[in-house]
Amino acid sequence: MRAPAGHLAACALILAVGPASAQTPPGAPTLPSDVLQTVEKLRAAGLADRNGYAILEDLVTRVGSRPAGTAAEARAREWASTMLRAQGFANVRVEPFTTPSWQASREQAEILSPWPQPLVIAALGGSPSTPEGFSGEVVRFTSLEALRAASAEAVRERIVFIDEGMVRTQDGAGYGATVAKRRGCATVARSLGARACLIRSAGTNTDRIAHQGWGATAPQDAQVPSAALAPPDADTLARVLQRSGEPVRVRLDIQARFSPAAPSGNVLAEITGREKPQQIVLAAAHLDSWSLGQGALDDGAGVAIITAAARLINALPVKPRRSIRLLLAGAEEPVNSDSGGNAYRDAHRNESHVAAAESDVGDGRVWRLRSRVSEGALPQLRLLQSQLAPLGVLPGDNQGGGGSDIGPLVATGVPVLAFNQDASRYFDVHHTANDTLDRVRLEDLQQNIAVWAVALYLLAEMDGDLRGSATGN
Amino acid sequence: MRAPAGHLAACALILAVGPASAQTPPGAPTLPSDVLQTVEKLRAAGLADRNGYAILEDLVTRVGSRPAGTAAEARAREWASTMLRAQGFANVRVEPFTTPSWQASREQAEILSPWPQPLVIAALGGSPSTPEGFSGEVVRFTSLEALRAASAEAVRERIVFIDEGMVRTQDGAGYGATVAKRRGCATVARSLGARACLIRSAGTNTDRIAHQGWGATAPQDAQVPSAALAPPDADTLARVLQRSGEPVRVRLDIQARFSPAAPSGNVLAEITGREKPQQIVLAAAHLDSWSLGQGALDDGAGVAIITAAARLINALPVKPRRSIRLLLAGAEEPVNSDSGGNAYRDAHRNESHVAAAESDVGDGRVWRLRSRVSEGALPQLRLLQSQLAPLGVLPGDNQGGGGSDIGPLVATGVPVLAFNQDASRYFDVHHTANDTLDRVRLEDLQQNIAVWAVALYLLAEMDGDLRGSATGN
Repeated sequence: MRAPAGHLAACALILAVGPASAQTPPGAPTLPSDVLQTVEKLRAAGLADRNGYAILEDLVTRVGSRPAGTAAEARAREWASTMLRAQGFANVRVEPFTTPSWQASREQAEILSPWPQPLVIAALGGSPSTPEGFSGEVVRFTSLEALRAASAEAVRERIVFIDEGMVRTQDGAGYGATVAKRRGCATVARSLGARACLIRSAGTNTDRIAHQGWGATAPQDAQVPSAALAPPDADTLARVLQRSGEPVRVRLDIQARFSPAAPSGNVLAEITGREKPQQIVLAAAHLDSWSLGQGALDDGAGVAIITAAARLINALPVKPRRSIRLLLAGAEEPVNSDSGGNAYRDAHRNESHVAAAESDVGDGRVWRLRSRVSEGALPQLRLLQSQLAPLGVLPGDNQGGGGSDIGPLVATGVPVLAFNQDASRYFDVHHTANDTLDRVRLEDLQQNIAVWAVALYLLAEMDGDLRGSATGN
Repeated sequence: MRAPAGHLAACALILAVGPASAQTPPGAPTLPSDVLQTVEKLRAAGLADRNGYAILEDLVTRVGSRPAGTAAEARAREWASTMLRAQGFANVRVEPFTTPSWQASREQAEILSPWPQPLVIAALGGSPSTPEGFSGEVVRFTSLEALRAASAEAVRERIVFIDEGMVRTQDGAGYGATVAKRRGCATVARSLGARACLIRSAGTNTDRIAHQGWGATAPQDAQVPSAALAPPDADTLARVLQRSGEPVRVRLDIQARFSPAAPSGNVLAEITGREKPQQIVLAAAHLDSWSLGQGALDDGAGVAIITAAARLINALPVKPRRSIRLLLAGAEEPVNSDSGGNAYRDAHRNESHVAAAESDVGDGRVWRLRSRVSEGALPQLRLLQSQLAPLGVLPGDNQGGGGSDIGPLVATGVPVLAFNQDASRYFDVHHTANDTLDRVRLEDLQQNIAVWAVALYLLAEMDGDLRGSATGN
C-alpha cells in the first residue's frame, strides 16, 4: 500500500537537493554551518546504524515478552539499566510505581454444537476467569453500534460476538476505529445481560493468531469474560451461524489473574546539555509488552530507535546545549492507567521540558511530522522539518498529540512532536504472537534512527525552542 | 517464486493454439471430435467451477480439523457420504479399518535459564507425554547428520535441538530433505541417550506457528518426547545458546494419548462406466487432517478437486466408457501405516484399475504431469498431456509415483499419473494452524479441477489405456 521505501527516499533527496537553507523563507531562523554538518553526519550515521538492531535483538533474546507488573518486566528494567549504562548515558535510574497487572494462564474456546470444532482465541486484558464448564449460545453483531442497538431479549444470557474487521491504513486510523469494539464490548454486553464477549481480533492479519489487548476501559467494567478470535476463527464462527440455522453453542475457558497494584517502573537516562542542562528534550518508548509475542515491534523497536538515536548524539565530540532524556516507560499497555506516563508526569512536571516525542509504531518508516507547538515556534518547527525532508518526512499539521508515555506530560502544555510512522504492516503483528524479531526490517529501523537523531539533536542544539521563546528556562 | 498464474496459462494457450491434433506425431492415436468437444467443455467448466470451493467451505465449516482415528474423522466420513450422494455419485459407501491414532492435549515449552521466556511448539506425532516437571539442558545441531555424528557424551541426558531450515521449492523437494530430521530425531536421540527432541519446524513459513507431523517412523521408536519449534522460537533458542555461553535449560510439557487401533475408514463413490464398468480409473485424496489447522489445504482441497472434477463428468449427457472411482481415504497422516491406502489395496487389488492418481498438495496449480506407465502406453499419455497443455501443464518424465493413498495399490503395478502441483506456498501452511479456508485461492483450485476433469474423462473414455493395451479387461 505504500511506495517502496527507496523510491520515497530518492524523491525526497531530489526535492532537497542544495543546501537546506535554500528552502528557508526570508526572515526565518537558519542553522549555522557546523550544526548543518553535524545533522548531515547524524543522518548518514542513522541510516547505517547497527546498534539499534543489536539493542532490540538483545532485548528479545534476554527478556522476550514482558507484561506490565510481571517478573519479566522487572527483568526488562534491569536489562535496560545495564544497557543504557553500557551505551554511555548519564543518570541512569529506575523510578518505581505500581500498575494494574492482568495475566491469562489459559484461554481456550470451541464450538460445541451444532458442528464442534476448536477456536483460536486470546483473552482480552482485564477479562475475569470463566466458571467451570462455561458455555453459551452465540449471537453475532457486525459492530459495537449494532450491539448497542440490540434488545436485551436478543442478548440476555448469550455470548455476544462482534464480527467487525479492521481497515488497513498508513496512518493507523483503522485501529482507532476498530479498537472501540474491543474496549466497549464487555461493558455494553454486560449492560444487556450477556454472559461473555467475543470479538474479531482488532488487527489486519489473516493468520490463525489472535490479537491481545485490553478490553473494557476500566477493569471494574470488565465483568464478563472477553476474548478476541483469530480472523479465520471469526470467519468459521460466522459461517457456522449463517449456514446451520440452529443455535450455535460455544464453550469458553479463560483462567486469568488480576492485580490492581503490581510493581512496575520507568527507566530514565540522559545526555547532559552543555549550556542549558536543566532544559529537557524528552524521547519516550515503552518497555512492557503483551504476553504472546516478544514485543519486538511493540515496543522493542521504539526502545531501540530512541536509544540508538541518542547514542549517536552522545558520541558527538561536543554535547548539545540542552539535555536529552530517554524515558523507557513501564506499564504502557494496561488501559486507563498509562502508568508509566502518569508516573513520569507526577515526578517531573515541574522540570523544564522543551519538547516531548514518543516512538511506538514498531519499525514503520516515519513519513510525516505532526506537532503541537505554539504559533511562535512554527519557524523552528519548519527548520527542523527541512532537515528531515531528505529522510522522506513530509510536513504535517500542528494538531498532533502524544502517545501514552508522554500524553500526561504534554497535557500540561509541553510542546509535542509526533513522528508519524507507516502503520500499514504494524497491525498485522501488534499484540500477537507474531511480534517477533524476524518481523523487523533493519532498513526501516535505520530510517527511524536517522530521523530521531536529527530531530533530538536539533531540538537540543538550535537557537530558540518549540515553546516559542528563545530564552525559556 | 513462480510466474503469475494468468501469465503461465496465457503462454500455454499460445503454444496450444490450433487443434490439439496439430501437435500429435504421425501415427499416434488421436481423439474423435466429439471427445475433443467434451474435453473443451470440461476445461471451461473446470476453470469456472464454484462447486469445488463450496465443497471445501462446507467441510471446514461443518467438520474442521479431523485427525485420524477421532470422532471428528468419523464426522468427516458422514459428511463425505452425504455430500457424495448429494453430488449424484453411485455406490457411495464407507469401508472401515483401524489406524494408529495419536492426539496431544497439551504442548508447552519455555526456556528456564539463563533467560526465561516461553517457546511455541507443536508436539510431534507419536511423542510420549513428558513426566511431571520435565526439563533438560539443550544441545544444538544443524542437521540430523550432525546429531548422528555426535558422541553420546555430548548428548546423554540432554534435549537435542536440530536447527535445520527448509528450502522453498516449486516441486516440494525441500520437504523431503527436511522431514528426515522430523522422522529421525527421536530415534537417533534415544540411541545416544538423550531425553527429548526439539526440531525447527519442517516448513517454510516464519510465523510464530509450529508445524505438526509424525515423528519417529515407527511409534515404538518414538520413546523420547519430541516437538517442533515455531521458526521464531527456533531463532530465539539458537540466539540464547549462542550468546549466553551458559547451559540453557528448557522445560517441556507434552501430554498425549496414543491408540494403536482406533476406528477409521475410506469413503468411496463412483461414476459407473457405460461400456467397461469393471475398469476403474481411481482418483484419491484424504479426509483426515492434523489437529491444529482445519485441513483446508491438506487435504480438503484434494477432496474438493477430485470430487468437483468427477461431478463435471457425471453431469455429461453420456457417461464415459470406464468407471471413475473416488477414494476419500482415512488415516493418511499417521506414519508408516498409510492405513487408508493399505486398506484400499487389500480390499480392491483384484479389481481392474486402469490408472490411479492422487491430489494432496493443496490448491497448488498443476504445472507438470509425471507418470509411471508401460512403454506401450506412452502414446496415450502424450495424447492426454496435449489436452492438459492449454491449462499450463508441462510434460514430465515416466518415473512418477503415488502418494500415501494410492501408493500401496500402484506398488501392485497399476499405472500412475502424478499431477505435480506448485508447492511453493504449500509448506508455509501444511500441518499448521494456518491451514484454514482463507489460504485457498479459488483460481488455483479451479485450474486443478479443470486438469482433473479433463484427465479423468480421457482416462475413462479414450481408446486404449495406460496399461499399454487397448483391450485390457
